[in-house]
Amino acid sequence: MTAHGPAMSPDEFKRNGEAVLNWIADYRADEDGHRPVQSNIDPGSIYEALPASPPLHPEPFESVMQDVDRVLRPGLTHWQSPDWFAYFPSNGAEPSVLADLLSSGMGVQGMLWATSPACTELEMRMLDWTVEALGLPEHFRFDAPGPGGGVLQDTASSAVLACMVAAREDATDGQSNIDGLAQSTGPLIAYVSTQSHSSVEKAARVCGIGSANLRLIEVDDSFAMNPDALAATLEADRAAGCRPFFICVTLGTTGTGAFDPLDVIGELAEQYECWLHVDAAMFGTAALCPEHRWMHEGVERADSWSFNPHKWMGATFDCSCLWLRDATALTNAMSINPAYLDNPATAGGEVIDYRDWHVQLGRRFRALKLWFLYRCVGLERLQSMIRHHVQLTQELVSWIDDDPDWHRVAPTPMTLACLQHRAGDQVTSAVLNSLNESGSMALTHCELDGRYTIRLSIGQWNTTISHVRAAWDRIVSAGTEFTSSS
Amino acid sequence: MTAHGPAMSPDEFKRNGEAVLNWIADYRADEDGHRPVQSNIDPGSIYEALPASPPLHPEPFESVMQDVDRVLRPGLTHWQSPDWFAYFPSNGAEPSVLADLLSSGMGVQGMLWATSPACTELEMRMLDWTVEALGLPEHFRFDAPGPGGGVLQDTASSAVLACMVAAREDATDGQSNIDGLAQSTGPLIAYVSTQSHSSVEKAARVCGIGSANLRLIEVDDSFAMNPDALAATLEADRAAGCRPFFICVTLGTTGTGAFDPLDVIGELAEQYECWLHVDAAMFGTAALCPEHRWMHEGVERADSWSFNPHKWMGATFDCSCLWLRDATALTNAMSINPAYLDNPATAGGEVIDYRDWHVQLGRRFRALKLWFLYRCVGLERLQSMIRHHVQLTQELVSWIDDDPDWHRVAPTPMTLACLQHRAGDQVTSAVLNSLNESGSMALTHCELDGRYTIRLSIGQWNTTISHVRAAWDRIVSAGTEFTSSS
Repeated sequence: MTAHGPAMSPDEFKRNGEAVLNWIADYRADEDGHRPVQSNIDPGSIYEALPASPPLHPEPFESVMQDVDRVLRPGLTHWQSPDWFAYFPSNGAEPSVLADLLSSGMGVQGMLWATSPACTELEMRMLDWTVEALGLPEHFRFDAPGPGGGVLQDTASSAVLACMVAAREDATDGQSNIDGLAQSTGPLIAYVSTQSHSSVEKAARVCGIGSANLRLIEVDDSFAMNPDALAATLEADRAAGCRPFFICVTLGTTGTGAFDPLDVIGELAEQYECWLHVDAAMFGTAALCPEHRWMHEGVERADSWSFNPHKWMGATFDCSCLWLRDATALTNAMSINPAYLDNPATAGGEVIDYRDWHVQLGRRFRALKLWFLYRCVGLERLQSMIRHHVQLTQELVSWIDDDPDWHRVAPTPMTLACLQHRAGDQVTSAVLNSLNESGSMALTHCELDGRYTIRLSIGQWNTTISHVRAAWDRIVSAGTEFTSSS
Repeated sequence: MTAHGPAMSPDEFKRNGEAVLNWIADYRADEDGHRPVQSNIDPGSIYEALPASPPLHPEPFESVMQDVDRVLRPGLTHWQSPDWFAYFPSNGAEPSVLADLLSSGMGVQGMLWATSPACTELEMRMLDWTVEALGLPEHFRFDAPGPGGGVLQDTASSAVLACMVAAREDATDGQSNIDGLAQSTGPLIAYVSTQSHSSVEKAARVCGIGSANLRLIEVDDSFAMNPDALAATLEADRAAGCRPFFICVTLGTTGTGAFDPLDVIGELAEQYECWLHVDAAMFGTAALCPEHRWMHEGVERADSWSFNPHKWMGATFDCSCLWLRDATALTNAMSINPAYLDNPATAGGEVIDYRDWHVQLGRRFRALKLWFLYRCVGLERLQSMIRHHVQLTQELVSWIDDDPDWHRVAPTPMTLACLQHRAGDQVTSAVLNSLNESGSMALTHCELDGRYTIRLSIGQWNTTISHVRAAWDRIVSAGTEFTSSS
């Protein structure tokens, strides 16, 4: 190889690329190869198996691919397995995988409109398409009148941070960006439920609000935020001279999949002049089907609304949509214009520069993932996928409810079931641990009212009724085993 | 298609994937296809060319790929072109492109060690390899004694935010995470040079410090931070009851590629008990060659050190390395442990959970990009690439310095030349605009001492002496044209 020129010739690139495509196709087709679903290696074993120093000379591509199988594969936890019922589904559908390849191959930067206009404009259109696909309000679209629009973030964590910063600046008239929060006149207070995602607390810490100024509002029997408790806390805070500024509504909590009452909370947000952020990371996808759009009741009051196509919808990670009813607060908060990024298009004010919509400056051509997904799959198939998973979950729910030993401890409005063994925490946790250790499936847990609870999340594209039935049979059988042995 | 099962069959996936591989191979080989280097489309034209609604039914993959050429390609700005001299090089070397494909295909999540141990452990090893490759201190390695280690961030912007938050918590004994900055006793002050990257100001805004508490320290004739000015400002701030807490040293500024004097600034950081962050995003890569390791003088005092393999080194975006001498402050600042992320490995404390090293929770298997790059290319070839670009730049420097009409207005320690036409700003900017509009190459500019300055950055893998010579000839000729016409 010479000092310049490509690291692989075009022919080598194509040949080696085909080897990777074959690996992926085989990996995805091979259910047996997904055992154990959760890797059971000892901590440090892969680290130790890798040489301590980088190579001086190039090695054949085949050697690297052999080491993918030999060294890495035992340490993979198989998120694409049909027996994946843990955390959340993370469908990376094939069209999206190929779009990501195209993005890497093009190697363009989307930090400014000018640094690759197609990157920005396809993203704008994909965010508009998704507004329509989910039945969200028109004011989130770029082609509707007004200051609304959307952006792809890497994760919902980054999205909530961006929105909390925008809300902070809104509440302080842009002063906290300049003078910092140390000069602020009184504490700004944010509100979530006790069941909200940890990313909201992380955002409150990072942006200088502090976790003690994040109120964790109690939930009702369905684990959704209790709006009366929220109202009381807002009033008490205001009476104490604090400034309520941010409320996060969760549509599909991580623990149980609960939906906070957006409509009522939105009224409170308006009354107390708070930014209303909606975190629909997991179950926002369900709104692809009109019958699930009840979750949008009250959405017209949302200042920002986020969900992750990289969860249930089939986009490869990372791909998180965020819309703003008025993007101005966000771009005001984030925009900095050094001379080295100056360009005629930005100066002309006709274009969107997405670097002003998040913390990062540089950005990949992520919109390709959504474009390929929509066009190669189509909305109807996406809808049928959602309906299939909801139906599988309803089957599971009927089995749980018919079972004398297990009970569902939270409503199951979508595709996440929460269950406990009647014999108590010890049996419930023993079942989870033994099933995970068996390698046959993957489950995670949460804590509800102080009790250990199995979460069973359905949503992989390749999960069928037989996988769900087998999972349930294993749970029942492990429950029986641990009850009789205790 | 049924409701479950893959969106493409294994055979379709392979066939369609080959079409994408062919597209990339052709795109990269076709220099003529890279004109205009900077897209010249009108704002909105791609957005308008795309349908307003997503498709209901799947379309053939071929149609999508045809639209990549028909609709998107005119809106691509060609960062992989050998005539790319704008912003910074963004080499996405072929092995790294294929590694990214593998990452998308595996579809694993690296938020916790347990969610795919290979993802975390390969990353740890790749960060160690890179410490060795760059000649950085051993204490940044995981296999050295002590609390040091590294992590892949998406961008240097996220890295500096993470470090500023860690430094903030360090300076307030963890209290600002809890109580927020509104309760802080006095302003925390951060320090950078006037030539530092805008990401430091963005971080200061986002984390609640405020841009007024970010001191922009004046630079010397070489556009590097003046340590005497820094010392005077630190002393004045301390005398005024402020708390200096964070100093960012830039190794390779965006405007001119200047290197702040790390060694002297490090002494001040120690004296004033400030966190010392090093932003080597662009030119950190040069340390792959021992002859450029002069830049590390004083590195042993750095609390954190970041650089972007997705710039000069050949990793596809996004891939930014960050090391910490002691990772504890960062993980203390970022760590939140909800029950739904609880797992035996985390509870055992034997593993690294990278979610605690940045804002995001979810993360891709990014380390594959570095592993494939090192193994398919080898350190020697990476070094020869660096040396080649430095040599090309030195040739260019000699031509500029021999030219009566153009002068270099900043030292050129690495691969970024800054030039002005002697006839003044009007001619300099006319040259840049006309060359960019011609489509033959891409240049950007900065402002130095109030004057318009062309930045010419060399570093694409496929740039040869003939591309640099042609670029220079065009600059000279445009300068002559605009001087005689004015």
